[in-house]
Amino acid sequence: MIQHLVAAIDIGGTNTVFGLVDVNGKILLKESVATGNFPIPEDLVAVVCEHINKSLIKFQSKYELVGVGIGAPNGNYFTGNIEFAPNLKWKGIVPLSKLFSDKLSVKTVLTNDANAAAIGEMMFGAANGMKDFIFITLGTGLGSGIVVNGEMVYGHDGFAGEIGHVIMFPDGRQCGCGRKGCLETYCSATGIKRTYQQLSPNNQQQFSSKYIFDRAVSGDKEAVDAFNYTGEILGLALANSVAYTSPQAIFLFGGLAMAGDFIFKPTIESFEKNLLNIYKNKIKIQPSQLNENDAAILGAASLVWKEIIK
Amino acid sequence: MIQHLVAAIDIGGTNTVFGLVDVNGKILLKESVATGNFPIPEDLVAVVCEHINKSLIKFQSKYELVGVGIGAPNGNYFTGNIEFAPNLKWKGIVPLSKLFSDKLSVKTVLTNDANAAAIGEMMFGAANGMKDFIFITLGTGLGSGIVVNGEMVYGHDGFAGEIGHVIMFPDGRQCGCGRKGCLETYCSATGIKRTYQQLSPNNQQQFSSKYIFDRAVSGDKEAVDAFNYTGEILGLALANSVAYTSPQAIFLFGGLAMAGDFIFKPTIESFEKNLLNIYKNKIKIQPSQLNENDAAILGAASLVWKEIIK
Repeated sequence: MIQHLVAAIDIGGTNTVFGLVDVNGKILLKESVATGNFPIPEDLVAVVCEHINKSLIKFQSKYELVGVGIGAPNGNYFTGNIEFAPNLKWKGIVPLSKLFSDKLSVKTVLTNDANAAAIGEMMFGAANGMKDFIFITLGTGLGSGIVVNGEMVYGHDGFAGEIGHVIMFPDGRQCGCGRKGCLETYCSATGIKRTYQQLSPNNQQQFSSKYIFDRAVSGDKEAVDAFNYTGEILGLALANSVAYTSPQAIFLFGGLAMAGDFIFKPTIESFEKNLLNIYKNKIKIQPSQLNENDAAILGAASLVWKEIIK
Repeated sequence: MIQHLVAAIDIGGTNTVFGLVDVNGKILLKESVATGNFPIPEDLVAVVCEHINKSLIKFQSKYELVGVGIGAPNGNYFTGNIEFAPNLKWKGIVPLSKLFSDKLSVKTVLTNDANAAAIGEMMFGAANGMKDFIFITLGTGLGSGIVVNGEMVYGHDGFAGEIGHVIMFPDGRQCGCGRKGCLETYCSATGIKRTYQQLSPNNQQQFSSKYIFDRAVSGDKEAVDAFNYTGEILGLALANSVAYTSPQAIFLFGGLAMAGDFIFKPTIESFEKNLLNIYKNKIKIQPSQLNENDAAILGAASLVWKEIIK
């Protein structure tokens, strides 16, 4: 019997990862190209489709392609376009969904990377069977995907779920979005680096958020304090988030979430402290179960699987 | 032809208003009793059902009862119970939905009053045809109902949509919920009174939020400032709310919303200033079109109509 496959594409500022994924989340192909090598999106689409078509020929006795799922920064589910993505070289509006469906002649679904990963968590991770949850990616910034009653919240314009840009402190830290005090200026890889720099001003070297983790492990008080401060603000922000959609669980994904207790302990402590009474001790904050390396592909694939299965 | 009717019941801390409403929002009966006169909920249910049954006999040649809709503080849509409502004499869990369906033998739907009013706005008010909006009631506290993709957001436990208890300022004003800095301690009838008292400490008299409005109309600078301060915080809170569900519009209902430009102007100004770029100039903040006196009944009725029509 011929089985179904979807092509999964994750457009990143640095790399575009793509592959073929079956309905159980088995990855049959995974490759990547440097996004920056393609100043024109049509050229990237052509190369990716060529690779995908070659693989499909190899698999054609067993599998057939039924859809394309795309996760992309500033990806709009309703239009299928990437719209004004600040971290890509492609300016303005890029009709990426149409470019792929023209080449591959199947249904194409596109959304932003955090939404895609949230659906991936629902299909192939710890949110399996959950109808109400929030998915947070702690990367360079803070991305989020909100699921209500089993459905991704896209909002009126396709741009719902920007929890990283909730203003936590008016006149707080300058954010890349032009405003001040956004959550992601505190709670992200970049945010914790700014915190550590403030707490440890004599440390002049260039460092990564992984370096802060290593320092914390080795007992550096300022590094531990940086995690505590990050968790305190994240916990407050998540407690406030619960007042909107009252989820069953909140998942943390990405580099910072790998820091284990250093980030989870202060986050959960602040979360429970700041929750409205009716929500206390009900909602789990837990790490994503998606494998860091496969999450983008699985998320993009699950976009299509969710619509087909539904 | 026999037409359908629903019984609509709004349980308030002071009064319980109930009535009969047709599918077009026409109110055929509207009465009220003092909630406090019924220390036992069964007694209130008995009296309300007696009135409703009497009216139904009068209408029986033309109408038949198809459901009961109930708006109640701390009303849980999933369980049909009122759960630990601080403003009612009934303590603990009250299975109100069951009490009514046992008496009237029709489908009964219950949720909190703000959610009911939000659905009322969607069926009979300015949100008609909208799929994504937020409804805010500015009363003694700040209530909210969030609609996503045409459906009320109830959350995992039935208690979603408590925007009044988003913490705006850690260590801010003491809230009745036991925490500090909740939105409703600033943006509500009670909130603006606290603000005016701070701005005008020599004014020793007891006053209502209506008094502050009258003072503002007569040019009292502190009263105008109190509205500006309230609007500034409300605008920021609503801008943050957009980052969750990206609605098409936000509706303001209740006493404070009747203050017109005094509240709408500073709110909209702060809202647009604090919005993330991608949301700017897209989302209307506007007054509810539900009549203040009928909103509770229409909201409760629309709970049932929405489920029947759907």
